[in-house]
Amino acid sequence: MIYQDITYEYYGVLEDNIGKDQGLPSEQIFSFQSRVDEAHRRLMDRKEAGEIGFMDLPEKEVEARAIIEMAREKRKGMDACLVLGIGGSSLGGKALRDAVKTPLYNEMPPEKRNGLPRLYFAENIDPESFSELLEILMPHRTLVVVISKSGGTAETMSQFLIAVDWLKKALGNGYNSHVVAITDPEKGALRDIAREEGFETLPIPPNVGGRFSVLTPVGLFPAAVIGIDIVSLLKGARDMGKRCASPDLKENPAYLNAVIHYLFDVEKKKPLSVLMPYADSLLSLADWYRQLYAESLGKRFNTEGEEVFCGPTPIRALGATDQHSQLQLYMEGPFDKVITFIKVGRYRRDVAIPYPLAYETPLNYLPGHSLGQLIGFEQFATSRALRHNQRPTIVLGVEEISEYTLGQLFYFYELQVAFQGQLYGVDPFDQPGVELGKKLTYGLMGREGYEKYAEDLGE
Amino acid sequence: MIYQDITYEYYGVLEDNIGKDQGLPSEQIFSFQSRVDEAHRRLMDRKEAGEIGFMDLPEKEVEARAIIEMAREKRKGMDACLVLGIGGSSLGGKALRDAVKTPLYNEMPPEKRNGLPRLYFAENIDPESFSELLEILMPHRTLVVVISKSGGTAETMSQFLIAVDWLKKALGNGYNSHVVAITDPEKGALRDIAREEGFETLPIPPNVGGRFSVLTPVGLFPAAVIGIDIVSLLKGARDMGKRCASPDLKENPAYLNAVIHYLFDVEKKKPLSVLMPYADSLLSLADWYRQLYAESLGKRFNTEGEEVFCGPTPIRALGATDQHSQLQLYMEGPFDKVITFIKVGRYRRDVAIPYPLAYETPLNYLPGHSLGQLIGFEQFATSRALRHNQRPTIVLGVEEISEYTLGQLFYFYELQVAFQGQLYGVDPFDQPGVELGKKLTYGLMGREGYEKYAEDLGE
Repeated sequence: MIYQDITYEYYGVLEDNIGKDQGLPSEQIFSFQSRVDEAHRRLMDRKEAGEIGFMDLPEKEVEARAIIEMAREKRKGMDACLVLGIGGSSLGGKALRDAVKTPLYNEMPPEKRNGLPRLYFAENIDPESFSELLEILMPHRTLVVVISKSGGTAETMSQFLIAVDWLKKALGNGYNSHVVAITDPEKGALRDIAREEGFETLPIPPNVGGRFSVLTPVGLFPAAVIGIDIVSLLKGARDMGKRCASPDLKENPAYLNAVIHYLFDVEKKKPLSVLMPYADSLLSLADWYRQLYAESLGKRFNTEGEEVFCGPTPIRALGATDQHSQLQLYMEGPFDKVITFIKVGRYRRDVAIPYPLAYETPLNYLPGHSLGQLIGFEQFATSRALRHNQRPTIVLGVEEISEYTLGQLFYFYELQVAFQGQLYGVDPFDQPGVELGKKLTYGLMGREGYEKYAEDLGE
Repeated sequence: MIYQDITYEYYGVLEDNIGKDQGLPSEQIFSFQSRVDEAHRRLMDRKEAGEIGFMDLPEKEVEARAIIEMAREKRKGMDACLVLGIGGSSLGGKALRDAVKTPLYNEMPPEKRNGLPRLYFAENIDPESFSELLEILMPHRTLVVVISKSGGTAETMSQFLIAVDWLKKALGNGYNSHVVAITDPEKGALRDIAREEGFETLPIPPNVGGRFSVLTPVGLFPAAVIGIDIVSLLKGARDMGKRCASPDLKENPAYLNAVIHYLFDVEKKKPLSVLMPYADSLLSLADWYRQLYAESLGKRFNTEGEEVFCGPTPIRALGATDQHSQLQLYMEGPFDKVITFIKVGRYRRDVAIPYPLAYETPLNYLPGHSLGQLIGFEQFATSRALRHNQRPTIVLGVEEISEYTLGQLFYFYELQVAFQGQLYGVDPFDQPGVELGKKLTYGLMGREGYEKYAEDLGE
């Protein structure tokens, strides 16, 4: 593994490069330092008060080694691991699987998977896809991992009841060795059921919310089941934490990225933040980022209780594919977007472009290059074309995709978003806006205590 | 198959339901009729001039039957079909595979696929994923379908050269029976190569652009290879065409949807258009829509040559999953979004929620319901919660997902977007903004005639 820092390039946002109308003057960014110091203090106060658990996670190497042991034990004889969890209980693990392995991982033959289980994330309660998924799994060779911090998530617990029934019918009462429950250490329905049924369990620290939980057992256990090196993952996160320890904008790329995005949203009317990796394996990371950004910053009230209705909108895109879908809009549409590329220095595999034809064609400029070169050139050309059209771009560079890289990226974005919440003056750790929909659903489902919500729903 | 019209419900956008500040008065929408009539005439003029080919496609049933025959012939003995194509050459076929079959189609055992081939779309030139994909395919049992209208798409033609080499090494010169080329009927590099190599070919009508090509052989042939009923697909499109033939907004849901989105963008500062199906199998349709909307409407110049920098931003989301990722932002963030749900009347399969536990838990409100009910309740509750928060919503209702439904949806959105382009005064059929990036890439690749673009790229 290459233990190299990711690079952060922001010259594509500067006035000197994209003009006065669309760009930021360097001085404006760095003159923000005093507000940054103040926001940093607020964040650190909450950390000291024990409210921000995600910052402690990179240190937990001992716990990670115990998770690896448990994963080794539980995956014995298993051909598949089925994770039941939605939102933050799934997006981190999926990002890890796709990045460190490949989005095609589950279709690889066993020898390409080192004999390790396939890994599925059943997020949705779509009855078609959930029943199809159970059909391609064999209960006697499937490990079910159920993840819900509260223990009461309607979607996940519905899947859980179906999966328990499915396992029990095939395995009888010994089915419980096929289940691992990841939930609150003390309370909630899932914790109680785990006790009754005798499931092995792992805890989610109470001070870590779902979208910040990738470095808890929520992300680590499924990753360890498929042999991902979670110790290197934590090291990546730890090293990014050290790199971003100072509030000095000149030294802290996570804070700098927060300030740049904040200024573009508030001062330059660019509320759309596109994350566009040039690697299929990082598209799920963009999905993870999309939740982190949207749920943390999209808020009606600030911490003073004033209505602000703030929140930039995250957008996931994929290079080079979306050059043939979204680039036209990014190049010529409204000046409302900031685009971050993730550039890969060296792909883990490359393919030379051959010329298996016996005659000349207009394609003869392609052979002699590789796909890795072509996609690299396209990333560079696209960022230059956007700059030419006065569109702000940022480049995150990773030398090679790995556990260490991922650890850095996860921590970079978690810290950025937690800090960016301070700039907006909102609480990045709550999500009050989703409660109403949940209560209305409970009402429709006939859950006791929610009858009045059903009544409010008359056409 | 159920031949039922999709429903279009827009009361969630009206002032009466979401308030004066955020909603549209019904009168404002319908007072737009004279501009609609004029835009309709402009669109029909271009159709009469033969410039808008997609409107003729639903009639081509004879051609569809020939495509089915050819697909039956070519898939004999094949275990997989690999489509090489990017953007519009891939998104429609993928939407069809996922919707009519399932996103898990390629992982199903052969008997669940009726012995038909798996179907892969290799969009990206990511060297990691492309080489992994070739590893899980066997050349002697793979049909390669290469799709490029111009015949010169760098990404697709690079993949093509690699795939030809891979086939040739395994099969020798008889490899050509494993390739079908879909390209311009007369010209271009791919057409020439197909002649030289003796590939079977299918034409892309010159007056149909990539993002409007799903009902040409581009979408139809891959669909037919996996047994999708493309005749019913065309019938769905044809019936939607008839339903939307009149320019009268009260009778034409595609035009009405265009007007509503146009007014929200221009008058109400809501440039974000979210498409959120409540079905895993329709997420790829949202990806298809995302290209159609972005490339067609994101334009620097209007047809008078004036700078307009217009174009709403399409966003794909998934219900119920994104309730745990994006809903917080949609509920509480800025008032900048219009959200369209696709509601499914009846899922093709459903799963009852059992209660395999021997004791009471807070989950006892779940059994007695099915996953289909739960996801349906969640869609309803979410749209009501959004309405309560004054967020505009539209509901497209499909009784059941099928070829016929898909045909309706494809045509509905194609017509909407083509017409919406007239409201903005832009050409919805070009994409001038992507040329610069392509030329810079050619320069970097050393293609003859593009040297000066490489020179412009100095740091």
